[in-house]
Amino acid sequence: MSDTQSSQHILSVTVENKPGVLSRVTGMISRRGFNIQSLTVAPTEDEGLSRMTIIVEADELGFEQIEKQLHKLVSVFRISDFSEEDAIERELVLFKVQSTPDRRHEIIEIANVFRAKVVDVGKNTLTIEATGTVSKLDAMENLLRGYGIRQLTRTGKIAMGRGHDA
Amino acid sequence: MSDTQSSQHILSVTVENKPGVLSRVTGMISRRGFNIQSLTVAPTEDEGLSRMTIIVEADELGFEQIEKQLHKLVSVFRISDFSEEDAIERELVLFKVQSTPDRRHEIIEIANVFRAKVVDVGKNTLTIEATGTVSKLDAMENLLRGYGIRQLTRTGKIAMGRGHDA
Repeated sequence: MSDTQSSQHILSVTVENKPGVLSRVTGMISRRGFNIQSLTVAPTEDEGLSRMTIIVEADELGFEQIEKQLHKLVSVFRISDFSEEDAIERELVLFKVQSTPDRRHEIIEIANVFRAKVVDVGKNTLTIEATGTVSKLDAMENLLRGYGIRQLTRTGKIAMGRGHDA
Repeated sequence: MSDTQSSQHILSVTVENKPGVLSRVTGMISRRGFNIQSLTVAPTEDEGLSRMTIIVEADELGFEQIEKQLHKLVSVFRISDFSEEDAIERELVLFKVQSTPDRRHEIIEIANVFRAKVVDVGKNTLTIEATGTVSKLDAMENLLRGYGIRQLTRTGKIAMGRGHDA
């Protein structure tokens, strides 16, 4: 391990859509002792391909190793590193917030400010869907904590280059 | 393998947030020959925990095996099966669509109909952020295909129970 500082890296990896590819990629990263902070994998515009977005905490040397090893995997077709780039980054979060009927309007106001949507109302809960950058979603989470967050599920970040660099 | 029909299953799995857990879960599923259609893993309301949402195609017997094996993993704290339940299911998609300046308004109109947001404009592309159920996003994708989808990145589905069952 190098003595340089760890930082968050964003990788978008296009892979063959078949059993075992995901576990080879995640196994390779975890064997090197790096923690995957979030990961998404889903089908793409091309039926035979999946795209993974991996957020990993690593120093420069560790990150280089990860990239090099990814390139060696036969099922990996393309790797884009968005760590430094001004890319489009988005995440989806579902918040289930504690809410008695008389507090509902306050929570709905917070949702409106963040352009989030109320997607379910329970007797004592409100469920809110929000998308955006991590800093926006963190700000929203901090506000909602005051009411009590019963459950929070995030997708993890996805990223895409700007302009025409597809 | 049983002779019953394969169908799509949704699992929400709360796990310890540490290296190796993700690769143990994905390895266990792929060793049994099941393809993970989409997977997300990200931090939760509790700092020490991550939540995975796994969409897997399996017959009933295969799915039971997956659930049983998941329960055996020490780092797995809680498993919710949303396959049968009327849960809240959402996904986030970024579409980068081919668009000359004179076609932009048509594509923006489609985005508006689906309550999606234009998040970037390039010389010959528009990038759109959309959230919703899989059927809504598929309908949108079909419409946008007519213009040419340069790139499509999905987060994969996340799910949450309705009402107060946190």
